[in-house]
Amino acid sequence: MSKKILTPQEEDFPAWYQEVVAKAEMADNGPVRGTQMIRPWGFAVWEQMQQQMDQRIKQQDAMNVAFPLFIPMEYLEREAEHVEGFSPELAVVTHGGGKELKEPVAVRPTSETLFGEYMSKYIQGHRDLPMLLNQWCNVVRWEMRTRLFLRSSEFIWQEGHTAHATEQDASEYATNIHHNVYEEFMNNVLACPVLVGRKTEAERFPGATNTMACEAMMKDTKALQMATSHELGQNFAKAFNISFNDSDGKLQHVWTTSWGASTRMVGGVIMAHGDDQGLRLPPNVAPQQVVSIAIKDDAEVLDVVNKIDAELKDSNVRHKADLRTDVSFGRRATAWELKGVPLRIEVGPRDLKEGKATLIRRDTSEKQSLDINKIAAIAAETLPQIQSAMLAEATKFRDDRIKEVKTVDEAREAAQVGFGKIPWDVLGTEGEAELAKDAITVRCLQKEDGSLPKADENDNLIAIVAKSY
Amino acid sequence: MSKKILTPQEEDFPAWYQEVVAKAEMADNGPVRGTQMIRPWGFAVWEQMQQQMDQRIKQQDAMNVAFPLFIPMEYLEREAEHVEGFSPELAVVTHGGGKELKEPVAVRPTSETLFGEYMSKYIQGHRDLPMLLNQWCNVVRWEMRTRLFLRSSEFIWQEGHTAHATEQDASEYATNIHHNVYEEFMNNVLACPVLVGRKTEAERFPGATNTMACEAMMKDTKALQMATSHELGQNFAKAFNISFNDSDGKLQHVWTTSWGASTRMVGGVIMAHGDDQGLRLPPNVAPQQVVSIAIKDDAEVLDVVNKIDAELKDSNVRHKADLRTDVSFGRRATAWELKGVPLRIEVGPRDLKEGKATLIRRDTSEKQSLDINKIAAIAAETLPQIQSAMLAEATKFRDDRIKEVKTVDEAREAAQVGFGKIPWDVLGTEGEAELAKDAITVRCLQKEDGSLPKADENDNLIAIVAKSY
Repeated sequence: MSKKILTPQEEDFPAWYQEVVAKAEMADNGPVRGTQMIRPWGFAVWEQMQQQMDQRIKQQDAMNVAFPLFIPMEYLEREAEHVEGFSPELAVVTHGGGKELKEPVAVRPTSETLFGEYMSKYIQGHRDLPMLLNQWCNVVRWEMRTRLFLRSSEFIWQEGHTAHATEQDASEYATNIHHNVYEEFMNNVLACPVLVGRKTEAERFPGATNTMACEAMMKDTKALQMATSHELGQNFAKAFNISFNDSDGKLQHVWTTSWGASTRMVGGVIMAHGDDQGLRLPPNVAPQQVVSIAIKDDAEVLDVVNKIDAELKDSNVRHKADLRTDVSFGRRATAWELKGVPLRIEVGPRDLKEGKATLIRRDTSEKQSLDINKIAAIAAETLPQIQSAMLAEATKFRDDRIKEVKTVDEAREAAQVGFGKIPWDVLGTEGEAELAKDAITVRCLQKEDGSLPKADENDNLIAIVAKSY
Repeated sequence: MSKKILTPQEEDFPAWYQEVVAKAEMADNGPVRGTQMIRPWGFAVWEQMQQQMDQRIKQQDAMNVAFPLFIPMEYLEREAEHVEGFSPELAVVTHGGGKELKEPVAVRPTSETLFGEYMSKYIQGHRDLPMLLNQWCNVVRWEMRTRLFLRSSEFIWQEGHTAHATEQDASEYATNIHHNVYEEFMNNVLACPVLVGRKTEAERFPGATNTMACEAMMKDTKALQMATSHELGQNFAKAFNISFNDSDGKLQHVWTTSWGASTRMVGGVIMAHGDDQGLRLPPNVAPQQVVSIAIKDDAEVLDVVNKIDAELKDSNVRHKADLRTDVSFGRRATAWELKGVPLRIEVGPRDLKEGKATLIRRDTSEKQSLDINKIAAIAAETLPQIQSAMLAEATKFRDDRIKEVKTVDEAREAAQVGFGKIPWDVLGTEGEAELAKDAITVRCLQKEDGSLPKADENDNLIAIVAKSY
């Protein structure tokens, strides 16, 4: 590829991002400002994420529901701290069925309040606990500056909401989701190594007593928050009167949690792995893991591609046979490269004479000429190698750009080219406010060994500071 | 079960429906009028439908997308005939981000217009055709008289939208979806035998040149429209300027189709199969196909239930082990019966002494005392038998209530207790208007052999008339 398909990342990362989202056919702007149209390839990536995360959520015994899009304004006003966080972002429906509504309704910015009402109604005794619910849905938060997948007025997410009998149960469940759903999924499916830590009070979700986050480093060294899990204490339980009779018959408020991840993760995968030739999708999240291209319209070529197709589908590999020989080979190869398919098999009449075809890795650009009878099996074996290699590469990229620092000035400097690590005792809320002036934030607080501190652990914490999306 | 759990269907069908939806924990009313909260069991049924229908849609090469919730009002006004069908039902957002919007936006009642815009932008040449898209999403149509699952202001559906180079391609694709996605799914997954036919001009979707429907009979003998597929001719292509250069380089408008099915199908399954004890779910759509109940908290009992659980999961049966021995056995058995789980295994210490447990079919109430070492295998073998039996039962129920008639008066009478079949030449648009006064409609037009007529076939058609939801 001598011709530049995309603005190089080094030259202008935001331009690269915008172009790759368009040329890889991931998404487009919708007609109403701030809305997005997720195109087939972008949505297929999201479907992989959704399905694989949903499996993990179900393993944690949470059950899916579908609650309404419209929320009475009065619900949102009930939890003062919560509404302060959302009211400037609300979309409000004032007309329905050709008439002005007596009570305008909000389009959900989150369904927290509906879950509160539901739990209040259906939780009676201790046998109803824990109540573990989750919802995949669209939410709307009116945004002024939008960017496809990363920040849009409407996005798709999952929002988990659970109620527990004790603070400890709630805390354990939220932590468990954070590690076994989010962290595990991001490392092993998205090949995005995430730093897991607690948010500072300034960065916490309104109404939460503790917010845990997964933070990933993008190729421009900025941080992207990939998911958050909240302990809400009894705040929502009190606002929505969610109580139960404990085993001694005493009326108690429940302890709630909430946790979410969104289509923003698609942006994360693009920016954590993409290069100047386009997307690079980790095999576990690639809608097509291998594409085999018939270079020419030749009976033997088509036959070999179809055989490879059958063999790979038998091995449960997501494989696409590209038989569109009426489109030039170069154009198709470039398009699949842009779309980030992890492995390409190119089958042409010349190589076929020698019983060979070519296997190309998207992550390393490595090419191998292989026996046509072995190429499908080798491709299938290569996929897990690519998955590990991409995780290792992203981990090294990140770790090379994390600097341990000792002062606020050094932290500011480190955040220009990566993440800074600074003792929270040194930085403190004053240093945090100081960095905020340069749009640098504390992404999370970790223990010295890099692990997640509990809600009440405050000694010897390390702050990770960075610029972020 | 001597105590009546539900109002009997015979006594008051609408009351039975409302009660079973509540007591089987399927759904609840949302706080904003006309909205619904789909509860975990209801949503699990929908997830089965969604996944299995989605597989079939993908086999027809359609690709999923996610387009915005908000549509500019101007888009809806572009296709006059189309907007007439929707404007009284629109929910309109007039405020966003704390300000009044310059241009109010509609919450999508369907995404037809967004697909039109998208196709107009991305279809250039004949190689871009066919363009086969589908979307799973929520839509809003402000409704005055609502009923959970059947008619609600917000519902979840899939809407397929495709563009083709020729009228014949479009017609074949829509017909194919109608038979191989909808009809096949409803017969084989939902065990709801559907009559497939064409809509009359009066019943057609606004803007369509042909509408095909799947119509099922409910237990109260009313018809429920379970899905529709439309040929839109070049109407939308002209309104949205969707054109392509054909292989001769001549600019042509495309031919489009659309097709949809919704959460209404959940209501269909409830009303087509339910009885006075609750839901009866066909195994193919049941979130849990078998539930094994530990009657008492006894080590051996729990051990046997866990063994059955492992064995059934190994055979890919969706199985639930109910070990909640702190809740009375009777209460749990009633609850699973209400929820319509196709097979129940009851394991108690008394039977266990003789190495036995009990297997109960939900569809027939048949009970068998079986060897505990064989019961899991027998349960797994029984599921497909239940699936066929339920389809046969629903088919017989319907066929016994379809009457061939020769006059409008006879048709009116037949529609009080089932469906009437009357030659379309006899009924005609005048007879159709006559029946409409008694809320009886032509559900579809079929050929004499019961098959689907093409858009332009008009001779010797048979009208199916009924009351409907």
